[in-house]
Amino acid sequence: MISDQFTLSCPVPLSNNSRIALAHGGGGRLTNRLIDEIFGKLLSNPALDERHDGASLLLPAGTGRIAMSTDSFVVNPLFFPGGDIGTLAVNGTVNDLAMCGARPLWLSCGAILEEGVQTTLVRRIVESISVAAKEAGVQVVTGDTKVVDRGKGDGVYLNTTGVGVIESTHHIGPAEVSEGDAIIVSGDIGRHGIAIMAVREGLEFETTIESDCAPLWKPVQSLLASGIDVHCLRDLTRGGLSSALCEIAEIRKMGIRVVQPNIPVREDVQGACEILGLDPMYVANEGRFVAFVAKSDAEKTLAVLRAYPNCADAAIIGTVGSVDGQGRVIMRSTIGVDRIVDMLSGEQLPRIC
Amino acid sequence: MISDQFTLSCPVPLSNNSRIALAHGGGGRLTNRLIDEIFGKLLSNPALDERHDGASLLLPAGTGRIAMSTDSFVVNPLFFPGGDIGTLAVNGTVNDLAMCGARPLWLSCGAILEEGVQTTLVRRIVESISVAAKEAGVQVVTGDTKVVDRGKGDGVYLNTTGVGVIESTHHIGPAEVSEGDAIIVSGDIGRHGIAIMAVREGLEFETTIESDCAPLWKPVQSLLASGIDVHCLRDLTRGGLSSALCEIAEIRKMGIRVVQPNIPVREDVQGACEILGLDPMYVANEGRFVAFVAKSDAEKTLAVLRAYPNCADAAIIGTVGSVDGQGRVIMRSTIGVDRIVDMLSGEQLPRIC
Repeated sequence: MISDQFTLSCPVPLSNNSRIALAHGGGGRLTNRLIDEIFGKLLSNPALDERHDGASLLLPAGTGRIAMSTDSFVVNPLFFPGGDIGTLAVNGTVNDLAMCGARPLWLSCGAILEEGVQTTLVRRIVESISVAAKEAGVQVVTGDTKVVDRGKGDGVYLNTTGVGVIESTHHIGPAEVSEGDAIIVSGDIGRHGIAIMAVREGLEFETTIESDCAPLWKPVQSLLASGIDVHCLRDLTRGGLSSALCEIAEIRKMGIRVVQPNIPVREDVQGACEILGLDPMYVANEGRFVAFVAKSDAEKTLAVLRAYPNCADAAIIGTVGSVDGQGRVIMRSTIGVDRIVDMLSGEQLPRIC
Repeated sequence: MISDQFTLSCPVPLSNNSRIALAHGGGGRLTNRLIDEIFGKLLSNPALDERHDGASLLLPAGTGRIAMSTDSFVVNPLFFPGGDIGTLAVNGTVNDLAMCGARPLWLSCGAILEEGVQTTLVRRIVESISVAAKEAGVQVVTGDTKVVDRGKGDGVYLNTTGVGVIESTHHIGPAEVSEGDAIIVSGDIGRHGIAIMAVREGLEFETTIESDCAPLWKPVQSLLASGIDVHCLRDLTRGGLSSALCEIAEIRKMGIRVVQPNIPVREDVQGACEILGLDPMYVANEGRFVAFVAKSDAEKTLAVLRAYPNCADAAIIGTVGSVDGQGRVIMRSTIGVDRIVDMLSGEQLPRIC
């Protein structure tokens, strides 16, 4: 229901006899409610409460800071143009660490295999993990395999948890987002979700749309090294660009304004979205992030990012407004009309990562 | 097939068209083969190659060492006497860190929920995670939830990954096991597996057998603090005491001798094992470990451990022999006969953790 996406929904508590729906895993409002009301409430501590892509942790005796982030991967299908569950499992977690300003160093890998899955398929996936880990400069240092009965899994599920070091003393996170910040997206949006949906729905386009799945630490490292005043970074996975913007706006209770024609979307992706009835603003990416930087550093940020082929289409897409207590995201559309961008309330694309 | 357990099986490579069986997740020889031939081979690095319960990692710029360990939990049923998947997910990972001599600090938690599962059930599990984390002195600092379609999961699967600090400069791991080491088990074995099997098979005993699920850092910390020359620690999860002993013997190519009457097994557990056709040596525990210490420290180790109610039955069960290139584990039985203890080659108890 596209119309749902643009309705400001009033958060209704999870009732006691409710059941988990696919939409609770979609990265939108229901996911947030599940996290708020169960995981966030019962496990609360300062690191978890920050609600960032990963936790920033001070080592005992002040010996430095590390970042830690986890993701499970249940993507369907396991293989898709531009990657597979293995590349996704490495880049997804490595990118969450990068969003904390941390240099990714180590990954764990937990595999839940379904009885009957071919070992050659498992091998192909682990080969992808190996290649992606080398590219991202991380080592898989600890692992675990479990097997579940046939019909209690779906081939292969993975979990990766990453640990990285935070070398800068400059804190990066939603709390640092400030009035006037420029909002920069690192490249065109929507490719990962469309690549998955095309396979799942058996759609063929003139050219194959490949996932944008890629590691993001190098461009992030360059941003930090070049002295740019980076306030917050967030990768655009489940729920897409909209969810990232809505989350930040909500946490800070600040308005955000973005300009639709400035948001890069490839023509083939736009066309596929129209066929599938999807809005690219809500489609998941696996190699894209949004940066909130001091206004005066906006052009410099673009220049640094564009030096990376994966960020060649980086663009300034909007600005952060004042604290208004509402935390709305407003988008000026291509025809010059303002509309509210809300967090996805239902499920647009299940099992995208 | 109990007889399989005592046969030294020749490791046959995984063939290219083979499929994953439940036994690949049982913690025995097939699990090891899967890890050796796919995960270990393709992802090889010094930390992973050590094949310990977790990885010991040197932070950049020599600012200290941390340990990292991961486990996925697919236990069936989700709730059992003495715990549930939540307590298991905390203690399982916390204990793996303790086995590296690391003080557990932080956990990640990834949940894979099946569409249709009741939110009250999820809440109960997260409450258990919260209670167990407090007891173990750790914080859940980062998390992730995914939802899979009905029939593609089994209620709730969890992954936890833990990070702890290694405060001692004294390295603990399989590589340190030496000729003459005393082998000490921290308490009676077999309770966790039997607690699960009793629920699964609908068995009732005179008394309810409860899982031994518990955090192990405190007794381990006391061992380290008391200056005992600890060489290696290993918790007795999947595959039980036998697998732990066989793995160490195999890694070090050293013989291990244990004395069956010295290995503590509760009478009710022994009785249940007989009914179920199981050998307690192969049954999983979730709050037990084996310590390899310098012979001269054996009695002191017992004294330190027995101060903890959970380790009141700690016992010296055997010794490490010389390097013989074979790495066999020999057990002198209650009737004075020596037999070879082999790693479980098939699956004794699936989905025990």
